[in-house]
Amino acid sequence: MSAASFDEIRRILRELPGPDLTAQTEVVRRQSELTKPQGSLGRLEEIAEWLACWQGRAQPRVERPRVAVFAGTHGVAARGVSAYPPEVTQQMVKNFLNGGAAINQLAAAIDADLRIYELDLDHPTADFTQGPAMDETRAANAMAYGMMAAEPGIDVLCLGEMGIANTTAAATLCAALYGGTGADWAGPGTGVTGKALAHKIAVIDEALARHKDAIARRDPLELLAAVGGEEFAALTGAIVAARMGRIPVLLDGYACTTAAAVLHSVDRRALDHCLVAHRSAEPGHTRLLDALKMRPLLDLDMRLGEASAAALAVPLLKAAAACHNGMATFAEAGVSSKDA
Amino acid sequence: MSAASFDEIRRILRELPGPDLTAQTEVVRRQSELTKPQGSLGRLEEIAEWLACWQGRAQPRVERPRVAVFAGTHGVAARGVSAYPPEVTQQMVKNFLNGGAAINQLAAAIDADLRIYELDLDHPTADFTQGPAMDETRAANAMAYGMMAAEPGIDVLCLGEMGIANTTAAATLCAALYGGTGADWAGPGTGVTGKALAHKIAVIDEALARHKDAIARRDPLELLAAVGGEEFAALTGAIVAARMGRIPVLLDGYACTTAAAVLHSVDRRALDHCLVAHRSAEPGHTRLLDALKMRPLLDLDMRLGEASAAALAVPLLKAAAACHNGMATFAEAGVSSKDA
Repeated sequence: MSAASFDEIRRILRELPGPDLTAQTEVVRRQSELTKPQGSLGRLEEIAEWLACWQGRAQPRVERPRVAVFAGTHGVAARGVSAYPPEVTQQMVKNFLNGGAAINQLAAAIDADLRIYELDLDHPTADFTQGPAMDETRAANAMAYGMMAAEPGIDVLCLGEMGIANTTAAATLCAALYGGTGADWAGPGTGVTGKALAHKIAVIDEALARHKDAIARRDPLELLAAVGGEEFAALTGAIVAARMGRIPVLLDGYACTTAAAVLHSVDRRALDHCLVAHRSAEPGHTRLLDALKMRPLLDLDMRLGEASAAALAVPLLKAAAACHNGMATFAEAGVSSKDA
Repeated sequence: MSAASFDEIRRILRELPGPDLTAQTEVVRRQSELTKPQGSLGRLEEIAEWLACWQGRAQPRVERPRVAVFAGTHGVAARGVSAYPPEVTQQMVKNFLNGGAAINQLAAAIDADLRIYELDLDHPTADFTQGPAMDETRAANAMAYGMMAAEPGIDVLCLGEMGIANTTAAATLCAALYGGTGADWAGPGTGVTGKALAHKIAVIDEALARHKDAIARRDPLELLAAVGGEEFAALTGAIVAARMGRIPVLLDGYACTTAAAVLHSVDRRALDHCLVAHRSAEPGHTRLLDALKMRPLLDLDMRLGEASAAALAVPLLKAAAACHNGMATFAEAGVSSKDA
């Protein structure tokens, strides 16, 4: 994709593959025969079915998870919307590369391949209170770059991000996609409260006013470029590429789910191969999950990003696959079934 | 404990060790220095602190988890309160020993030592609608047996159970401890609905009427013997022994938490070394969690027992310990802190 454009992205989005219904049928049949009361493994049964649908096999596998973290820098960070200075984005990327961040420990705990994708960190996007954060070419190129994360052989893709000020971008983008004001979608992020939070909200409202014509045009990709950021665009690319490559996706927190919401706004089926790993402590995330009608797997008051919660949810997928593939049936085990 | 008695159990309960406050202080200090916004790992930070308190070390470890499943048979099962016949308890124990059950897959997924403890399965407890399920000696011996599960070297103990009809026992025991009727505490268990559920509720109410004098005496251990079961007693023993041995405990679902509630009714601090792994789909569990003021780690609509959800929560503990022990501090990583 050397000449990436929104038209090209739109063409791909019209060709998204659907679930493997044969694998799904086989999973549902087997679930009913395993030595447990019907439905008693709850969401683990849903997960096994979902994995089968999107991996395209009746015996799902979670043996090669990848954790992909996209880092971007934001012009709007200069407006003082975060508790941390803008240079922390690059400092944290170094911390990732040196193994010192939370995501390093969490990726190691699940034996995952951890990749850090840096999005032109020395050139922040424009301050979107003044104009679009990016033009179409920059956004489409970031999407194409993000597509690289979905390589063959990976059986689950955990997506996350790092970018000082990106909860401001997430809140603005959510308001642009779904309506509402800064106050509806903004939260403490890295720890902004009181007057600083009021300032963050005012900055978001300023951006919404600046982009009111684009918002009225209701083109999700245009809005992504206008008030998102490069890591958001890369995340959308990774989600799309995972769908094409039959790789189920775990979405992390607020910024990551916001990127996913752009695709959902283009096509309601675009996230069917994604689960949200965790309900972020950031309040906008719950509002967004309601809009997407997605129920997260975990609810542990986390608000770190970095794909931390996505990695944390991988053992649930491993467990679901292990139960589904490894359990005995009533007949095999000689256990009386409910109808006996 | 050859001559186990409730007096002996009560003596032990008066001598429960408290948290290691030195380790706790050290953990809290280190959490504030790690490269993440304050509190952004949410409950993972609480878990690290809890592990340190009860393991008695500032660098908690989750390397040798044990999963202990206690199986008991219940006289009240003859009243047709379960969707499955009583012999399924022994059949499922064989399934555990042959590796075919959900817990086998889940224990293997976390590399845990899985032990199945059988409680005199050929001799069910008495039907507690007719009189006490057990006498004091049988209950105290089951407690002593359960204590064996907490061996030195284990760093977390996952507790669960198997026993056809034991959600009937759990509901009856909860009503005996906390008040209310069968309808308040009963649920589908293995899949009982409609008239069958109404029958289950009637059986519980019958038991509550039969034991009204014991209920009025408010002795939790007497109530455990009266309307509990041997696996409940063994679970209480395991919880107490884990406390003495500085082993944090993960409680599974409704029956397991009910056993724990007996101890909590004796001493409000008795479960401070326990976390509830999961909110069971069995509605009585949520009512019980409210009474205990305990918030489960997971909420995945499971209702299987077998310590399945306790095993499923172990990766959260591993993750909490890994982040706490492995992350770099702001100073080590050269990341600007919030105050910079």
